Order: sequence, then C-alpha cells, then structure tokens
Amino acid sequence: MLVIDFTHVLSGPTCTRMLADSGARVIHIERKTGDDTRHMGPYIADGSSEYFRICNAGKESIALDLKDPKDHALVEKMISKADVVVENFRPGVMTRLGFDPKEMVKKYPKLIFASISGFGQYGPWSKQAAYDTIVQALSGLMDSTGTPDGKPTRVGTSVSDVVAGIIGYSAITTALVARERTGKGTTVDVSMLDSTFSLMVQNLMLALGPHKVPHRIGNRHPDMYPFDTFDCQDQPIAICCGNDHLWNLLLNALGHPEWIEQANFKTNDLREQNWRDVKDAMQAVLKTKKAAEWDDILHEAGVPAGLVLNVDKTRRLDQIIDRGMVKTLDDGNEVLGTPMKYGTWNSYGLQKDSPKLDEDGDKIRKEFE
Amino acid sequence: MLVIDFTHVLSGPTCTRMLADSGARVIHIERKTGDDTRHMGPYIADGSSEYFRICNAGKESIALDLKDPKDHALVEKMISKADVVVENFRPGVMTRLGFDPKEMVKKYPKLIFASISGFGQYGPWSKQAAYDTIVQALSGLMDSTGTPDGKPTRVGTSVSDVVAGIIGYSAITTALVARERTGKGTTVDVSMLDSTFSLMVQNLMLALGPHKVPHRIGNRHPDMYPFDTFDCQDQPIAICCGNDHLWNLLLNALGHPEWIEQANFKTNDLREQNWRDVKDAMQAVLKTKKAAEWDDILHEAGVPAGLVLNVDKTRRLDQIIDRGMVKTLDDGNEVLGTPMKYGTWNSYGLQKDSPKLDEDGDKIRKEFE
Repeated sequence: MLVIDFTHVLSGPTCTRMLADSGARVIHIERKTGDDTRHMGPYIADGSSEYFRICNAGKESIALDLKDPKDHALVEKMISKADVVVENFRPGVMTRLGFDPKEMVKKYPKLIFASISGFGQYGPWSKQAAYDTIVQALSGLMDSTGTPDGKPTRVGTSVSDVVAGIIGYSAITTALVARERTGKGTTVDVSMLDSTFSLMVQNLMLALGPHKVPHRIGNRHPDMYPFDTFDCQDQPIAICCGNDHLWNLLLNALGHPEWIEQANFKTNDLREQNWRDVKDAMQAVLKTKKAAEWDDILHEAGVPAGLVLNVDKTRRLDQIIDRGMVKTLDDGNEVLGTPMKYGTWNSYGLQKDSPKLDEDGDKIRKEFE
Repeated sequence: MLVIDFTHVLSGPTCTRMLADSGARVIHIERKTGDDTRHMGPYIADGSSEYFRICNAGKESIALDLKDPKDHALVEKMISKADVVVENFRPGVMTRLGFDPKEMVKKYPKLIFASISGFGQYGPWSKQAAYDTIVQALSGLMDSTGTPDGKPTRVGTSVSDVVAGIIGYSAITTALVARERTGKGTTVDVSMLDSTFSLMVQNLMLALGPHKVPHRIGNRHPDMYPFDTFDCQDQPIAICCGNDHLWNLLLNALGHPEWIEQANFKTNDLREQNWRDVKDAMQAVLKTKKAAEWDDILHEAGVPAGLVLNVDKTRRLDQIIDRGMVKTLDDGNEVLGTPMKYGTWNSYGLQKDSPKLDEDGDKIRKEFE
C-alpha cells in the first residue's frame, strides 16, 4: 500500500500516521524547509521536534519544490503508482499545484485522493481558513463545555484536528474496501467542521428531536445522579452511579447507609432534581480522604469511579503501558501508540522514528524517476 | 456486506451506524425489551427516542433472547454468514453467551469480530466498568480542559464513547482491507481509554518529549497570541492570529493600527508573554459591538475568526446543511449525517429511519433459519 502524503501540521499528518501504523508505506512530501511542525516545539535534547515526531513516526521523507518542473514530474510519477494521496491544503491549492483531485482520479482511476480541510471541498464556507479553535467554536463543542455560570470552554487538546484526521482515515479505508469490489478509486472530502459536529451526539439529539436548545451543565450527566466529579482532600474523582443498586453500594462505601432513607435522595429522579444537595453531602465525606484512597474503597465496593488524572500520570498507567499506547521506538524516543488492536497481526505499528528532512529522498528519486 | 450488531447505548452503535451509513446491511440484535436507549429521552412527538434514532438509523432490528437455544442457533447461523460482528459488552460476556470472539474467528476464518469496551480485552483493568465520564477523567482529557484557576472540565459531549466508535469503525475497515489480501478475518479490540488517550496529542508531546507536565490554560493557544476566545457585547468570538501579518490585519479591523508600535505587543513572543494585556485591550474594543458584527468585519479583513455557537445554531449553518450533516429521513425525522464524503458515490448514507423493535424479525428468521 503506497501513500503519497502532502499533509502538514496536524489533521492531515494524524491521518497518514494512522496509515503508517497500519503498515502502509507513507512518503511524506515536505517543502525544502520542512513541515512547519519541525520548527515548532516541544523539542527533545537532540533538537528534534516532538510535535513532528508524534505526527510522523513511521513515515519516509522527501523534500521537494512542487513548482520545480523536475520535482513536479517526479511527484506525478509517484501519484501514478500510488494507492492513496492525502493532502490538507486549503481547497484549490492542489489544483493550482497541478494536481487537481478530480483530474488525478480521472487519470489514475484506481487512485483514492483524500482531502482534509477546515470546512470541506464544497459549500459556501469552503475557501475559509480554519483552525482547531475556530472549529471548536463554530461546531457547538465549546459552547457545550463548562459550567452554566462560566464561559464556553475549549477542549484542552486539538480534538477538531485529530478527529478530522481519524475520520479521514476511516473514509480512506472505506474507499479501499469499495475499490476491491468496483476496481475504482474516488476523491474523499473530509472537513474539520463536519467531523467535530458528528461528535455532538447528545446535544444534537435534543436539538433535532424535540427541538430544544441544549445548554452546558458542567461535569454532571443530564439524567443521572450521582454521575459527576467530586472534590476529595487533594483532587477530584469521577463517580458514576446511574441506578439505585449502585447508589446503595456507594452509600455503604461512604459509610452513610442511612441516606438510603433520605426523602430527597430516594430515587434517581429525586437525586437528579436535588443534585446540588447530593453533591454537597458526598463531598463533605469525600474531603476527609485523598482521592486515591477513595478510588480503592469505591473499586472494592463495586462502585464505578476513576481519578481525574493529568495525562503525564495517564501515560504511566499499567493499562496504557500494557496496551502499547506509549510506543518506545528503536532509538529510545517515545511516541503515541495506536488504539487499533487486532488479534491476528502486530497491532503496534512500525518502530521507525520520524524521518529527518529528505532522509529518503535519494532512494525515492531513484525509484520513481 | 453483512454486519451482526450486538451493541447497545453509544460507543458500539456509533460504530455500526457508520457501517450502515457506508452501505453495509446492519442487523441490530436487541434483547426482548429493546436497546436501553429506546427507553431514554429525549423523545419526539410519536413517543420514539431520538437517542435511539440518532444511533440506529439505517439498521434492521431483531429482538432475541440469546439464552434461548432456538435464538442462539439462529444467531450462530447469522454469524456464520456475516462479514463483521460488533459488540460492546464488558469483556467476557460474549464468551459466556457462547460466542467467544477468538473461537468465532477460528470457526469462521473470514469473520471480523470487533469488540469495543471501556479499557480493552486485555490488561489489568480490562474487566472494570467504564463510562464516558470516567474515561474522560482517567485519560487526561478532563484535566487538560478549563482554566488554570478553575477545575478539570468534562467535554460537553460523550467524546470518549463516540471516538471509540469511530476508532472501532477505522479498525474494522482496516481489517476488511487486510482480508482482501490475506483472505483472513481477525478479532478487533478497541477501548475507550486508548481511543481518548490518542486524542491527547499536544499534551503528550510535552509529556513524552521533554518530560514536562502539561497544564490546562483555558481557551488560548500555548504558543501564539491572539489565538483565543474574546467577549463581545453579546457573546464570545474566537480569533486566531498566529503571525505578524494577521496581527496587522486584525489591528486595522479593530481600528487600532497604532498598536503595531506598542512595545509589549511587538512580536508573537511578546504578545504571548503579555497575553492578558493583549486580551484586555482587544476586549475593550470588541465589547462595543455584537459578535456577529465583528465576525463580518474580521472576515472582510481576512482575519481568521468564528462565532462561539450553540449546536442548535450550528445545525442551521449553510455549510452544515449543504454538506448533509443534518439528514432528513423519508418520514421527515432528522438525524446526524455522515462526515465521510466521496466524489464517486452517494455520501449521504441511507435514508431509512431507525427500526421499531423486532421490525425485521420475521424476515430475518425466514432468511437464516
């Protein structure tokens, strides 16, 4: 599987990184000065960018000037032999560079040519610039996140970029399955706005079904209580009890079995109505011990709970390590692993570090010229 | 493409809904009382659940008792003819029901048997219960979201469920591509924790590269300013100027070209260091007009910006409507569309509403018995 990768920064490279993790040969075409993320931190001791590494591990690199006729001809040769092309320029840029997606698929009918962009290849907004923050704002995601008395809150990772990359990967693999049946390739058009909008399931079911306007409600569940985060002596913990059975187990674990009789806590509906009282009562007890102690007690009691962790703690969890979600490369550098695990073949992707700029250039020139 | 769908609630049905949108025949096996979401709101006028609809549009339904020998035999027959099985019970449940994933793939070597769970099919935490809120807490996502002086904040949609469904779909289509080459199926193992962890790219590049602990920083970008949300007269707007050129355009649009000379705003690094001052100065101007007015002015000036919208407004955007992201079914009910668009075939999925419980039961029994 040969992938020609014109992507840069985040949404596109996330998609092609997934292709590399699945065993495809990904040739990352960079401009002569390299992908922008090579010049963005954070950097490790040898001066290389971890931003570039995490997005480009397992790929090959060739540095080209797409406006130079010789390089242009080389790229056309590469595309003619490719299974998949991926790019995330603004709509129209590939056409200006002489590689119009529709034309390329017409010329090479088995080719899958995938474009990832802010708003998509068509529609009135298609030419506008988008950044993750703008898409989080427009999609409703930001407005849904935070407390009712606080402000709309950006998700603390570039989820709109990353999810567009994952949806791009999904659409490419779907097109590959279709190609096996029809022999035909296709263009693929994935946008950050569409992809982020497709995450908004709970909010959209309110807006599309009964035509209600959803509002942000902090960390709690809209219909169940206690299903929220709670302060302990040192830090918060998430506790999720969606029915009377779990509520009962929780009360025993907290040492307050008598609350089961309390009139305003009797049913889930009552606890939901009086959630502030339930939360205050629970936190008064939870604040007597550290979150990790409560986590042990609650798990022992069979109550669903989890610590609110910084990702620097998450990455050290046994479960994350055991499942190869932090991958140590041959040279000792670390990157994110793949969440796609299979029973019958290696699920841990390639072990090759991200390439140096033009690292594979000579080899690729010889191969395709 | 035949998919046997044992899923319930959210992560699993998101995956099989994507399979249905891509043209697969998805038979949703429900227990005799129906999927839990049939009994969860929000409901529309005819009493049906929009939660169930949004997750199950385009599927067929059969109601079965998997412990009844006759129904069990029927299901085995269905699996023997299927391309894909998807389930999201806790690890071990399918085995207890007599459909162990590994055994099924051994028996039907072309089968792809996908399991989606909270923590995965192996690892020390695999048997634990997980809910979206717990995974958002453990993954580092919640800790990364919100302001430094505020609390860890849950993302306002069940992103850990939905993304696990999307990753499940990605892994299944990958396995289908592999099957075309090898003739062999496989088990697939996707977890909510792995999937959510894979979103944490920016935070992980700090933690894995220079071994720094990332902290939440509100809505602003870690390295560029102004790249943040700003209050206007009525509501916030996102404005993203990552370089001096855009900063210059912004100052003209705000009517303060003289700020270009201001010592503490001179470079991106200075603006980042003095972001509080930049924000205060900008907001003093922005608060004189409504966000929609500024949105027009900024777009006119070529400054990347976007309104912070409630999803009930997002769903009415031209760009969302034009791209079929809200899909009106044959019966007039509305559901979420698909973000995967292709040039050469219908990208809008099926137009069939979610099935009534056991709607296709008789037909399916005749077909497979």
